[in-house]
Amino acid sequence: IPSNTLKKEFVLQICVPVLQIDHFGFLEDGTFKQRYLVNDEHWHQKGGPILFYTGNEGDITWFCNNTGFMWDIAEELKAMLVFAEHRYYGESLPFGKDSYSDTKHLNYLSSEQALADFAVLIKELKRTVPGSQLSPVIAIGGSYGGMLSAWMRMKYPNVVVGALAASAPIWQFPDMAPCGDFYKIVTQDFAEGGLNCDVNIRKSWKAVDNVAATDSGLRWLSSEFSLCSPLKKTDVAGFKAWLQETWVNLAMVDYPYEANFLQPLPRWPVQVVCKYLGFDPYSVSDYQMLSAISEAVRVYYNYTGSAPCLNTSSTATGSLGYIGWYYQACTEMVMPMCTDGVQDMFEPQEWNFQAFSDECHALFGVRPRADWAGIFYGGLDIASHSNIVFSNGGLDPWSGGGVTRNISDSMVAIVIPDGAHHLDLRYNNEYDPHSVLSARAQEVEYFKLWIRQAKKQL
Amino acid sequence: IPSNTLKKEFVLQICVPVLQIDHFGFLEDGTFKQRYLVNDEHWHQKGGPILFYTGNEGDITWFCNNTGFMWDIAEELKAMLVFAEHRYYGESLPFGKDSYSDTKHLNYLSSEQALADFAVLIKELKRTVPGSQLSPVIAIGGSYGGMLSAWMRMKYPNVVVGALAASAPIWQFPDMAPCGDFYKIVTQDFAEGGLNCDVNIRKSWKAVDNVAATDSGLRWLSSEFSLCSPLKKTDVAGFKAWLQETWVNLAMVDYPYEANFLQPLPRWPVQVVCKYLGFDPYSVSDYQMLSAISEAVRVYYNYTGSAPCLNTSSTATGSLGYIGWYYQACTEMVMPMCTDGVQDMFEPQEWNFQAFSDECHALFGVRPRADWAGIFYGGLDIASHSNIVFSNGGLDPWSGGGVTRNISDSMVAIVIPDGAHHLDLRYNNEYDPHSVLSARAQEVEYFKLWIRQAKKQL
Repeated sequence: IPSNTLKKEFVLQICVPVLQIDHFGFLEDGTFKQRYLVNDEHWHQKGGPILFYTGNEGDITWFCNNTGFMWDIAEELKAMLVFAEHRYYGESLPFGKDSYSDTKHLNYLSSEQALADFAVLIKELKRTVPGSQLSPVIAIGGSYGGMLSAWMRMKYPNVVVGALAASAPIWQFPDMAPCGDFYKIVTQDFAEGGLNCDVNIRKSWKAVDNVAATDSGLRWLSSEFSLCSPLKKTDVAGFKAWLQETWVNLAMVDYPYEANFLQPLPRWPVQVVCKYLGFDPYSVSDYQMLSAISEAVRVYYNYTGSAPCLNTSSTATGSLGYIGWYYQACTEMVMPMCTDGVQDMFEPQEWNFQAFSDECHALFGVRPRADWAGIFYGGLDIASHSNIVFSNGGLDPWSGGGVTRNISDSMVAIVIPDGAHHLDLRYNNEYDPHSVLSARAQEVEYFKLWIRQAKKQL
Repeated sequence: IPSNTLKKEFVLQICVPVLQIDHFGFLEDGTFKQRYLVNDEHWHQKGGPILFYTGNEGDITWFCNNTGFMWDIAEELKAMLVFAEHRYYGESLPFGKDSYSDTKHLNYLSSEQALADFAVLIKELKRTVPGSQLSPVIAIGGSYGGMLSAWMRMKYPNVVVGALAASAPIWQFPDMAPCGDFYKIVTQDFAEGGLNCDVNIRKSWKAVDNVAATDSGLRWLSSEFSLCSPLKKTDVAGFKAWLQETWVNLAMVDYPYEANFLQPLPRWPVQVVCKYLGFDPYSVSDYQMLSAISEAVRVYYNYTGSAPCLNTSSTATGSLGYIGWYYQACTEMVMPMCTDGVQDMFEPQEWNFQAFSDECHALFGVRPRADWAGIFYGGLDIASHSNIVFSNGGLDPWSGGGVTRNISDSMVAIVIPDGAHHLDLRYNNEYDPHSVLSARAQEVEYFKLWIRQAKKQL
């Protein structure tokens, strides 16, 4: 099934006609249509709960298909499911095809505006769907969508009674988490994926430099990696960045079963990759090293065997909105990352805010505000909030910026040691480790608790 | 003392150079200077508390002078005092003299932007003032400033540990409180101010219409009220509106001692006014009635005896920013008001959102969004928040839209039966009724509790 085709029939599908393009100002009074998907096949009960997916940076149908957890528990909770698309992604474009045309049109792409959309949408649903007026709403999201679900509860506790923030790196911001944690976790995954795996990847960068230093080496690399466009000298940094992102993505989607999230992959793909990288790092030539790397990355890019060549300009599904996300990173979602080549298997690179800011300015005409997200969303000081479950996978590099310890009785952390990026949000699977089954069970218990609390307050 | 002159010496006065004009978008990257006043004469202790006045729609020095409570308790709490001016008021003009020039320049005048200013300012203070890094900050405000202090705690609990929202009508919004309560309370104040007082005012509107129907009557009115500009036929509605606002203002500032808030006034000014309006309403002519009304309004406009004439285009201090506030009312601060002439002493007037919206559009080129404030600030559903004290005066018409019952252990209401508009925020006075002394004492106890809680969490 193509990832953008909905796997489920939606009993109901509504469009809200009027959402403000700018919730925080009155000069721009235009409106836009936000897409959202609704399923109410199990929602019989008057006032029955609503599970509301706070859409992230991509096509909502893709998130809908990859959030099987909500489908799996809908019957038990007699819940309505709503998947709301984030503005500027998928089909929810405030200015249609002009939405990305310039800085002016991009100005309303922000998490604050997106949260306001969700709040208005929920209020509108409750006003218009009979029987939903007193329905407790639980926000659910993964990754950036999980950040949004947590923030939704923090900023609109009047609209959602609780939130599940799965693999949500709400602390991957300046001065909240060490910038090196992300790549350290990637490296640990590969270190545990097989003997010598991380060591060989660490040594591969120099091998690329050595081989790419000559024209014949560049030709060899292009052919060995079956690259769609032959590598030029000026592409070498980009080629290494592409390799690095490949390892990162593999760590993120290291699921215990065959899956197609960012790419179609075998079960435990990091282990499969590492099978190609188990040799003694001191016994191979640069060419042998890179031949093995080439085999390894094919696991990621050509598991189905249908890729005629490898394209270094893309590393994952087309359902994600990369430009939009980059704009968000260039404005408020400032998430420092760094590597040192010692505690991680990558080439050392310090976090350089100024360089990042300059790049953002060149690309979008905006400069990031490093401190804003921390001030607006509370940073490390979120103890006064309630009813948020933060789940994180031990294999997931994003867990480095996640909440992995309980903050209070009602601000709780669930860690899934053998889970990758929001494994808990996926459909139940026979290969699921016990830890994720237990996590899902706990999450459902919290949902039931929040629903009971909400009913009591009526 | 002119009301804009500071009564106190400020030990410290800093200016934050960089506050974003738009916190929620990145296209407008300009900055402006926000004025704020700091006094640290009693703030010895490292990590000692900060009392932070969330400025409202006017010159901050005026609020500073009229918030004696903070000065009275600074020593006991060893607190630093900060009074922050609200953007677009006083000297805190984002675009200097062009700030009010058109809809485009007014676009950043909103409560959300103002709260963001306060949050950034507090973070900046803690970063730059030695010893303040761990200082718990308590938000304090009255009226709209009280709404801001409550919202500050709701939206930025990471920045303020608690809030005192004095006379803050956070429920004076559509579908939260009856639109008639405000004028009903004004009427009660006059009914209790003296025999026949409300009855005579209720009858006065018809008397104005009768007298103003002839040219000689208009001349008589102009002379009897010593109006600065002679009344024309087309001014009659405005004249009645001015009278109505006069009674409202008197109810708001019905303080138990001589004071100069909106105007210099005697103690218990409503009683003084009502002395002129105690006659039998059925025994007087229209002219006699209006002569008495004229005497009564002079209590408000000419208590000092220095007014050469009465100006119907203004009813209170020049320290408030009326145009800015009207813009805010025309955008998000939609506060329905209505009268029926039965439960109140005014001419019947329904709340007409469409007419209001049309007026706003004609004036500012914007249309109000009636539901937004309720969605963003939680409306009636604020029980999940904590550490907010809502104080209200029983005489204060704004108490009709205020929180006058406890919501939880830490969301509490204090009612001061014989208090007018945020009496509790004023300096201690020998004529203070017991109820306000008790309210202030409770407020200080809550401040101490929040400070202890904050210290414990370090």
